[in-house]
Amino acid sequence: MRICVIGLGLIGASFAGALAQADEAHHIIGYDARADVTQAMRRDGFIHQIAPNIAEAVLDADLVILAIYIQGILDMLPQIAPHLKQGALVMDVGSTKAQIVEAMNTLPSHVQAVGGHPMTGRMTQQVEHASAALFKGCTFVLTPTEHTSQATQATITQLVEQIGARPLWMDAHIHDHYVAMISHLSRLLPIAVMAAVQAQDSDLLWQLAAGSFRETTRLGNQPLGFWRDVFATNTTGIPASLRDVAQQLERLAQAIENSDLALVETLSEEAASHWQRLYGDQDREQTGNHDKDVKNGERKP
Amino acid sequence: MRICVIGLGLIGASFAGALAQADEAHHIIGYDARADVTQAMRRDGFIHQIAPNIAEAVLDADLVILAIYIQGILDMLPQIAPHLKQGALVMDVGSTKAQIVEAMNTLPSHVQAVGGHPMTGRMTQQVEHASAALFKGCTFVLTPTEHTSQATQATITQLVEQIGARPLWMDAHIHDHYVAMISHLSRLLPIAVMAAVQAQDSDLLWQLAAGSFRETTRLGNQPLGFWRDVFATNTTGIPASLRDVAQQLERLAQAIENSDLALVETLSEEAASHWQRLYGDQDREQTGNHDKDVKNGERKP
Repeated sequence: MRICVIGLGLIGASFAGALAQADEAHHIIGYDARADVTQAMRRDGFIHQIAPNIAEAVLDADLVILAIYIQGILDMLPQIAPHLKQGALVMDVGSTKAQIVEAMNTLPSHVQAVGGHPMTGRMTQQVEHASAALFKGCTFVLTPTEHTSQATQATITQLVEQIGARPLWMDAHIHDHYVAMISHLSRLLPIAVMAAVQAQDSDLLWQLAAGSFRETTRLGNQPLGFWRDVFATNTTGIPASLRDVAQQLERLAQAIENSDLALVETLSEEAASHWQRLYGDQDREQTGNHDKDVKNGERKP
Repeated sequence: MRICVIGLGLIGASFAGALAQADEAHHIIGYDARADVTQAMRRDGFIHQIAPNIAEAVLDADLVILAIYIQGILDMLPQIAPHLKQGALVMDVGSTKAQIVEAMNTLPSHVQAVGGHPMTGRMTQQVEHASAALFKGCTFVLTPTEHTSQATQATITQLVEQIGARPLWMDAHIHDHYVAMISHLSRLLPIAVMAAVQAQDSDLLWQLAAGSFRETTRLGNQPLGFWRDVFATNTTGIPASLRDVAQQLERLAQAIENSDLALVETLSEEAASHWQRLYGDQDREQTGNHDKDVKNGERKP
């Protein structure tokens, strides 16, 4: 299969390398604005060929993978459209899907298209960490478009399995709401907490900030970077999930106001059991054990 | 000064040891339900004398320090009241203050009382970590009661400085609201986020949980332990701060809904600069840099 990868960052380069490793029959053409990166990627066998420009990159490609930032994908689709061959298949790896699927629906009818989002869970985007093994065992979300035939579904499912990932097909809007809850929230909650503290406008309050506050707000200590595009293109999923959490905060506020500790206890136990089911209990905190022990009049072993 | 410390957990034992080190004139009497702990603490020089029971512990004490869990402090105050000598000074080290100060106000008029909360920022409560140096450089909140004379304020301020901590006098209700924001929220936000995800009742959603979700919910993976008492005794400060955050979440929801990224950007930069002012930037995340670089067509050094 003749595969063109546009954008050789962590995801693009790793995807290219994984496909090159998976099947000798794959011929990987790479394009990136950064010449030093494309040369390094060819030298290291992540790609077989460097494309001099976008048009030549996609020419004759059976599969075009758009691995750049979200707004870049939205801008690139109409640019590559005229150069795509009959039956060419386009997919992306952007973190939001609804707007990209919408843009893919405007591609010419002789082109196939699928939205993709590999959930590698990496906190870094540095190309230095590119690896053919990046996708091993990770969930790879795939969202159908108006140009996704059953044959295309089968082809992409197989390719994703080839690189060791777990294909998970779902609707683009559902993806955007769910991913807002389990990913985009992590970037917005620390902003909300800091803004709430700042709104009190009290030097005294800042002086009290202790260890747990550091934990709660740590993910807020980074430039928005690619989150800008995420927030700009998930304008329904993110607000919905922010309001889902606000609703639960109000529920907890009322429970504590009414000294309904049974509800807080239940929600806390559910949260802990969900966490352990997802991540195991290897770094369970020890907070609070001592005071329990004094209550019992004896120490735990 | 004859000082009685009731409860030899991390805070109580460290407080006793710090006072013993600070001034040879201090005679420290310790009481704890756990005989093995009192004996170890006397052997290690944290206390000079073991009290056989509460009544004898507080008898003749110039200062009684209640270093047990919050509900225990509330129960203990009326128990020790009849045994306190003329002019005896009572203080506590509980994490919430309004209800404890209220209880202290009911002490006999010949007794002085001050609420205390050392902000050590420790995530553990284990007595094994007890150290005379625990309070060095930490903020030690002090809340006046109806039984706090100027002389008492001066005495306690000096004692707190003796153990290397920074005394910070404030109203008990203000303390409870502010501490809810910078500490109690850290325990409740993960519960709210997990409850919001659970409310979607979708296996698909759980399958998407990635690295950042682990970070956001990690503090939810622990038993409530002493938090039960915190939630039971901060029934105005916690609901207020939960609603402060919910308000900011709604503000962010509207901004993203209206594609007002300028506001999100501003709040994000403010959050990052507050974080760095509080904690330095030693573990600044690298997320998002690569995509910015592709956008610029070149990589950062």
